[in-house]
Amino acid sequence: MDFAAIKDELAKILSKDKLLTEELDLMYYSYDSSFFTQMEPSVPQAVVFPTSTEEVQKVVRFAYENNINIIPRGAGTGETGGCIAVNGGIVLDLSKWDEIVEIDARNMQVIVRPGVIHARLNEELSPFNLFFPPDPGSSQMCTIGGMVANNASGLRAVKYGTTEQYVLGLEVVTPTGDIIYTGGMQARCIKNVSGLNLTKLMIGSEGVLGIITQIRLRCWPKPKARGIAMAVFDQLDDAPATVLDVYKAGILPSGIEILDSSAIKAVNEFKPEINLPNCEAILLFEVDGNPPSVDYEGRQIKEIADRRARSVEWATDPQRMAQLWEGRSVTASAASRVRADGTRVFAGEDVSVPLSKVADTLRAIRALGEKYGIQVVNYGHIGDGNVHTAPVINPEIPAEVERVMKLVDEIHHLAIAMQGSTTGEHGVGVVRRPYAKQEHGQAVEYMQKTKAAFDPKGIMNPGKLF
Amino acid sequence: MDFAAIKDELAKILSKDKLLTEELDLMYYSYDSSFFTQMEPSVPQAVVFPTSTEEVQKVVRFAYENNINIIPRGAGTGETGGCIAVNGGIVLDLSKWDEIVEIDARNMQVIVRPGVIHARLNEELSPFNLFFPPDPGSSQMCTIGGMVANNASGLRAVKYGTTEQYVLGLEVVTPTGDIIYTGGMQARCIKNVSGLNLTKLMIGSEGVLGIITQIRLRCWPKPKARGIAMAVFDQLDDAPATVLDVYKAGILPSGIEILDSSAIKAVNEFKPEINLPNCEAILLFEVDGNPPSVDYEGRQIKEIADRRARSVEWATDPQRMAQLWEGRSVTASAASRVRADGTRVFAGEDVSVPLSKVADTLRAIRALGEKYGIQVVNYGHIGDGNVHTAPVINPEIPAEVERVMKLVDEIHHLAIAMQGSTTGEHGVGVVRRPYAKQEHGQAVEYMQKTKAAFDPKGIMNPGKLF
Repeated sequence: MDFAAIKDELAKILSKDKLLTEELDLMYYSYDSSFFTQMEPSVPQAVVFPTSTEEVQKVVRFAYENNINIIPRGAGTGETGGCIAVNGGIVLDLSKWDEIVEIDARNMQVIVRPGVIHARLNEELSPFNLFFPPDPGSSQMCTIGGMVANNASGLRAVKYGTTEQYVLGLEVVTPTGDIIYTGGMQARCIKNVSGLNLTKLMIGSEGVLGIITQIRLRCWPKPKARGIAMAVFDQLDDAPATVLDVYKAGILPSGIEILDSSAIKAVNEFKPEINLPNCEAILLFEVDGNPPSVDYEGRQIKEIADRRARSVEWATDPQRMAQLWEGRSVTASAASRVRADGTRVFAGEDVSVPLSKVADTLRAIRALGEKYGIQVVNYGHIGDGNVHTAPVINPEIPAEVERVMKLVDEIHHLAIAMQGSTTGEHGVGVVRRPYAKQEHGQAVEYMQKTKAAFDPKGIMNPGKLF
Repeated sequence: MDFAAIKDELAKILSKDKLLTEELDLMYYSYDSSFFTQMEPSVPQAVVFPTSTEEVQKVVRFAYENNINIIPRGAGTGETGGCIAVNGGIVLDLSKWDEIVEIDARNMQVIVRPGVIHARLNEELSPFNLFFPPDPGSSQMCTIGGMVANNASGLRAVKYGTTEQYVLGLEVVTPTGDIIYTGGMQARCIKNVSGLNLTKLMIGSEGVLGIITQIRLRCWPKPKARGIAMAVFDQLDDAPATVLDVYKAGILPSGIEILDSSAIKAVNEFKPEINLPNCEAILLFEVDGNPPSVDYEGRQIKEIADRRARSVEWATDPQRMAQLWEGRSVTASAASRVRADGTRVFAGEDVSVPLSKVADTLRAIRALGEKYGIQVVNYGHIGDGNVHTAPVINPEIPAEVERVMKLVDEIHHLAIAMQGSTTGEHGVGVVRRPYAKQEHGQAVEYMQKTKAAFDPKGIMNPGKLF
């Protein structure tokens, strides 16, 4: 079907304000936050903004009948090209469909449409003393639909797990245009082991199995107290060793973050008043819970970290906590500024390795940076081995681009060699497809078979995942 | 293929001690703990005891080539007929394959073969200060493979979730005889969002997608302290209202159990010295964590429960905790003895409803018991709305059997009408298949498509789930 015909048909399905077909508008949908789409943007044929399940169904049925690709999109904050029409097609922008359908506080649940922004959801849950624990860095922008599609997480995964732990049920428009309900058609229960777990299969499926149009989430009671510990280490290996000792003591902090020497340097250059100590690694522990528990665990963490650290500070005063955390808060921004003529690119930014291999991995990434003459800044969620690497380059210089691509490729192979994964929380999208076979072996065939069972024509977000 | 030929071929694949073909031996495999198999046992053609992935693969390949059904089985503690050869075939008994392959304490993980008994796993993890939190009532008997296949849970799901939260990766022999690794071929990382989540798809799939031959589990640090509160209520509705208030206070106990008046009566008749107060409902709260946290939450729970309860007791002394918990411990046994000529049957025993509907559900189940003249005992995991109902009948009396089947059918429809599920943790197996369509609607078709993608000949545990 040619472009004009697609446009005409979509105009019959959706009102004018829910359809973009002008090239200038479409350009905006040619990239996400990935370096890949910065280098190779792909303009879709059309963008639609459905705000009902029926509208989604109509668009999908039209696409299915005419073999047109469908690419679901949330806020476009992804770093993998996952929401980009790499093979052309219609982008379904779900970010405007942001209804909180119901807060069912008696059952500690909330039902939302896919476009609800993460930060807003937690604001709305707050008066009920509830919260949705996963906390991606993009909280102010990212949508719950996108979080489910990518099984997003963030700082608090150590204690609270990832998005999947909270999804009780989904409404999904399948690639053939059926509307199905996972987790029970009308269910509001917490526990349910009836049938194959299609809910969990959909989570992290990056839009290749269908369009998520409604989400039923379990919420948790909001913890009442919080504390932050900062520990400063002269030896990199002492950081993961301390993390393990904290676990061994029976403590599960809500977050454990690391800044290595590259991140510390970047932060201090970016904002000298933060003045992080010059050292090999800084650990930040966040502890939450009831007040006596937080005090107790804070004291224990300080005692454990003191065995190896140059210094440890524990704070429960909100202002002091914010100060201690500030270095971590600005790391991503700081990484972008380590070179006057460079910028941080999102590529190879999300490896996950076993805790026992974090120090070796960070050293190896720094060595790879030197090998390729690319500055890298390392930080991340050390508590679960999820390391964020920020390579900083001038994307206008082709030689640098070429070198960074080689660097990133080596980082991904390194992660697998370290018994890790190329992606701990950001997903595969387009950019990590080449590693699927190496990570998963023959299991990839079963992923493909599952995909084909849902999407016989292969129209749903093609070119992604595997 | 006829019986003699199957026997001959299996004898070529497996040594003599790993194969049962005598009818007397096979009889043992014709039932599990379900009332259904008590009434309708199904004898398999053969039973095999593979203890290596290669042996499993050889058996599965043989079965696949010859269109013979394969039925995986753990300890046979299931209550749904899930491990029974209802359409004939070869039972794969995995209970003897009980190797703990590795306790990787540095990465808080353990790798096991499917036959490891739950209680033993936690004993072996204990010296490392680690534990695997899900805690089914059948802990002393059930296997980790069975727990994964059924997504088992138990008392602690309130705080710790179900088995699926802890499974990081699986080795699976597929119905066509491939060996695949979910969660990464060699991975030891905690976070991994690469590819479709086949790990989670396998969990709770009740053996219809393949044979689980190895399991990589995440463990948690063992909590140091524990406390028990018992609250006695004169009004049934006050029990769930109290549970909700505890949640609202930001407390997530490790378990919240209920005994309604039927269970209290059964316990007191079974063991008069326990002497539970005569009342409408008893709640038992288990709290764990660090010592000051447990003390604080225990005091809070007492304060909250005191608003509605006739009496509340909070204990941290181990002996007193055991006394308070004893009523709950013996409930299942007590239910079997409420009638001298009767026994408790496992049918309709596992509904899950929203917390807001627990009281109505319990009342409705009691009324149904009266309607059909069947004594029922109700108890269960009220914290997550999972109610265990024990109908007590004399299975020798056909009229009672007929009435109990009607009762159970109504209980299952009731659960769905209450926006719940027919099964919170025990699974579907054979007995709850008739409700799949009502619970899941068209999603069942997608479960079937997924099954067909894995198992094109339909040989893997047929007659189960949907």
